[in-house]
Amino acid sequence: MIELERLIDHHCHGVDVRPLSRARLEALMSEAHRPEVPGCTQFDKPVGMVMRRYCAPVLGLEPHASPEDYVARRAELGGEEASRRLMRAAGTSDLLLDTGHRSGDILDVPGMAALSGASVREIVRIEAVMEQAARTAGSGEQLLTLFEAALAERASKAVGLKSIVAYRTTFDIDQSAPSRAEAAAAGDAWLRRNAESGWRRLEDPTLIRHGLYVALDLCVQRQFPLQLHVGVGDRDVDMPKCDPTVFVPFILQAEVKDVPITLLHCYPFVQESAWMAEVFSNVYFDVGFTLNFTGALARRAMEDALGMGPFFKQLYSSDAFGLAELHHLGRVQFQRMLSAVLSDWVAAGDCSVKEADRTAAMIAHKNAERIYRL
Amino acid sequence: MIELERLIDHHCHGVDVRPLSRARLEALMSEAHRPEVPGCTQFDKPVGMVMRRYCAPVLGLEPHASPEDYVARRAELGGEEASRRLMRAAGTSDLLLDTGHRSGDILDVPGMAALSGASVREIVRIEAVMEQAARTAGSGEQLLTLFEAALAERASKAVGLKSIVAYRTTFDIDQSAPSRAEAAAAGDAWLRRNAESGWRRLEDPTLIRHGLYVALDLCVQRQFPLQLHVGVGDRDVDMPKCDPTVFVPFILQAEVKDVPITLLHCYPFVQESAWMAEVFSNVYFDVGFTLNFTGALARRAMEDALGMGPFFKQLYSSDAFGLAELHHLGRVQFQRMLSAVLSDWVAAGDCSVKEADRTAAMIAHKNAERIYRL
Amino acid sequence: MIELERLIDHHCHGVDVRPLSRARLEALMSEAHRPEVPGCTQFDKPVGMVMRRYCAPVLGLEPHASPEDYVARRAELGGEEASRRLMRAAGTSDLLLDTGHRSGDILDVPGMAALSGASVREIVRIEAVMEQAARTAGSGEQLLTLFEAALAERASKAVGLKSIVAYRTTFDIDQSAPSRAEAAAAGDAWLRRNAESGWRRLEDPTLIRHGLYVALDLCVQRQFPLQLHVGVGDRDVDMPKCDPTVFVPFILQAEVKDVPITLLHCYPFVQESAWMAEVFSNVYFDVGFTLNFTGALARRAMEDALGMGPFFKQLYSSDAFGLAELHHLGRVQFQRMLSAVLSDWVAAGDCSVKEADRTAAMIAHKNAERIYRL
Repeated sequence: MIELERLIDHHCHGVDVRPLSRARLEALMSEAHRPEVPGCTQFDKPVGMVMRRYCAPVLGLEPHASPEDYVARRAELGGEEASRRLMRAAGTSDLLLDTGHRSGDILDVPGMAALSGASVREIVRIEAVMEQAARTAGSGEQLLTLFEAALAERASKAVGLKSIVAYRTTFDIDQSAPSRAEAAAAGDAWLRRNAESGWRRLEDPTLIRHGLYVALDLCVQRQFPLQLHVGVGDRDVDMPKCDPTVFVPFILQAEVKDVPITLLHCYPFVQESAWMAEVFSNVYFDVGFTLNFTGALARRAMEDALGMGPFFKQLYSSDAFGLAELHHLGRVQFQRMLSAVLSDWVAAGDCSVKEADRTAAMIAHKNAERIYRL
Repeated sequence: MIELERLIDHHCHGVDVRPLSRARLEALMSEAHRPEVPGCTQFDKPVGMVMRRYCAPVLGLEPHASPEDYVARRAELGGEEASRRLMRAAGTSDLLLDTGHRSGDILDVPGMAALSGASVREIVRIEAVMEQAARTAGSGEQLLTLFEAALAERASKAVGLKSIVAYRTTFDIDQSAPSRAEAAAAGDAWLRRNAESGWRRLEDPTLIRHGLYVALDLCVQRQFPLQLHVGVGDRDVDMPKCDPTVFVPFILQAEVKDVPITLLHCYPFVQESAWMAEVFSNVYFDVGFTLNFTGALARRAMEDALGMGPFFKQLYSSDAFGLAELHHLGRVQFQRMLSAVLSDWVAAGDCSVKEADRTAAMIAHKNAERIYRL
Repeated sequence: MIELERLIDHHCHGVDVRPLSRARLEALMSEAHRPEVPGCTQFDKPVGMVMRRYCAPVLGLEPHASPEDYVARRAELGGEEASRRLMRAAGTSDLLLDTGHRSGDILDVPGMAALSGASVREIVRIEAVMEQAARTAGSGEQLLTLFEAALAERASKAVGLKSIVAYRTTFDIDQSAPSRAEAAAAGDAWLRRNAESGWRRLEDPTLIRHGLYVALDLCVQRQFPLQLHVGVGDRDVDMPKCDPTVFVPFILQAEVKDVPITLLHCYPFVQESAWMAEVFSNVYFDVGFTLNFTGALARRAMEDALGMGPFFKQLYSSDAFGLAELHHLGRVQFQRMLSAVLSDWVAAGDCSVKEADRTAAMIAHKNAERIYRL
């Protein structure tokens, strides 16, 4: 097994340490928006299977514990203690936390630092900051001003920004920078709709594009990356239009400005993402979500990543949200799948042990250290 | 090797038991619409190679028999005896038969029951029923009435319905229910064209959408699934638009009504299909056609399926059409590829033997029993 | 290891035998258009890793030589001697050379024959011939006349034609033959733009379609294939629209005329390309670029190819450009990956040793001999 002297999780979320019912626990193991059919359980799928294998022992159970035993033991320990054990077992050195999604339910940066013992830094979600600004803005123009000030302020303490444009409009949009007047007009329209017919989340492409270009300038100033959600997610994803190759025009804009773009998750577009890392000097990627959710078969995603992507362009993430289990599993899956591939390379004579170690170090921490300046 | 105490083939077709010339036999091994180039043979491809390996012994030949020997032996036994041996060797417990494609050439439900000894039930192809109704309808309105009555009648004896919308219009269409007036007008136009310039198969998106929504209501009443052809097929397939993620708007309509949608074949969209099974509570899928046609490398498709899809959402099919060989191969490929993956999981400690058996049982029969209510 | 008594590289380019700086060498290992970030090297990616493994010994170094040692040794030998050693080590029997890309930098047909000792034949790039014609044409009509004469003349000495329509317009265009008047008008417009605002490469879809149909007629006359670039390439590629299934309407036109279409590279559309080889009687494909660029994990691409494609429809290429290393690696990667898959098939009993050898021979040379009439 490859040793990981430092492991930087460049994309993850906080943990929900409250007591979790079985239904709530299963919901956090899933991208579904409705409960599974009666008699079925999220434990009977790839991530559920490896969770019982690798997380159960951390809670003092045998591997392959039944869902009933797992849930009971977790309750017995309490959400906080169970989460602490799992975070400590993971032992991830650095967590870069996306704080923009359901932040009321999960621990924040200091909370995660205390729970895990890791160094925790923040990644700011652009669209969440604009939605917050919209809560108090009286006009489109004021929305932009509030948003820009808030994003700059948040960025000053963060190590990167993130966009979920793929979720909100797909990548299949005009990718140029809108004029300020266009953005203000779009802001007026959004605020008016909100006032007239109740709050609606940010989905306007003009405003989102404005947010992306404001973010790009902050990334230039701060010399840090812009993260992009890619592919897999919940039912809001219009999959063919979340292929990252559709977003090349924007990525070329970022390349001119030397802003690293980090593509997240990438399933089922891992091959496309790896090709982009080959072609564009600023593109990086991870297969974090994919490694957890493909369970015992995660080697496939690791191979798609290592099969085209430059080693100096790949990153580690867990994409864990809510469950400390997913933080722990993320590390387990990454370490064992990377080790499996690299040790096969060494056995076949395709690379030396020293090179294998160097490759692992790049993906585990050196690339992230460089672009996030950690 | 995993034992399969019951195996439900939830999507297959009847067998042609007439004597088959070599040319006809090869045509049934292929999705091509023109014969292969001179000097080449369909036996020299993945499915042809494993057919000679696994079907030849059932007919009393050595494995790897030459195409010449295989064809000669099949002729010597006669189409019916050869087919019977292959169906009995397959030993599939239940066949759910799609009866809507070239039904004049192949055995029907009772014929297949007699040949195979299996329990055989029918899946009704929506578009075929509408085409039949068009043969006698005098107006669009009458077409709808005849179609609705015929589909309801056929559904009353069937265990599911099936649509080939992907073949006829692709998934890239308006996916809402048309009004009855719109459907009737589209029917008028189709009948008129047929009368004026000769019979043309159903390709009108409005009529096909009407068929889908009528079918959805019948699925609700009968509490059984709607099958959807996905991806791979003959030259009529416009592949990028047969990606099942393009059909999400319709699938959400079915989810609201709790109608299971079963995605068939799925190559090259197995990862996309598995993701849909993860996200939508009503989505099921198989990789039937793919397992046969990828031959010795079918483990790839099995891994893509098991790598993201919940185990309680996967199904078995052979998608066999015409050749009893494809029924037999379907079982062989499914059993050996599933066994290979599961035994590796057990060997790696990722799951217990008991769980592996339970997982196999879900995919082999338990999921199909539940949704088809067998 | 499978023996290859003849190996036909049906798609490759000439070699640059001039002295290469490290920067230039790395640029030739990459599809990127900007240099890698400081501190990073193209040797740290899949193709760079196997290059050091398999090419270093040919130049008298240990496997896994450092980039520094590799570059130094190459300089010491001189570009010509290093290239000769690598070409001779590759020992490819036949090179079909695409001469239409940056031909000033690389050896031509006689130069490659002398360097390699192989039989070298030419593949003519359609768009390059039209661009050459545009240098002297005074009108659209004259452009067509010059182009048609030049292409016919070039074709008379070549063994095939090639189009890079995917790069220039994507496959997502009207795929019918334009009228001569439409093509001439498009020619007038292009020449006018060139005269007014400086030379611009051929990107007009009408002219490119005209070129394709002129080429198709020459392919009929000469009974040889038309090659199509597919998928992977540099930043000009609009990936989703370079999916070969998007070009089916044109391919059906070629099928009617019995013109073989050979799909090149195919990443990330290998499964789609293999399906097209199954469905269309005239479609052939290779995974040449992919085998080199996926390095130690190239078995994936080989499996995607062999997992659906008829064995009588697959071809070998290296897609080497500039570096003799890529010619050598192409052979190494093809031979070891094909051997690995076939020997597993034999071990599993899925095919006999004789069949494995026959399959290898088809892909290594027999299919290319047949369609290129070598």
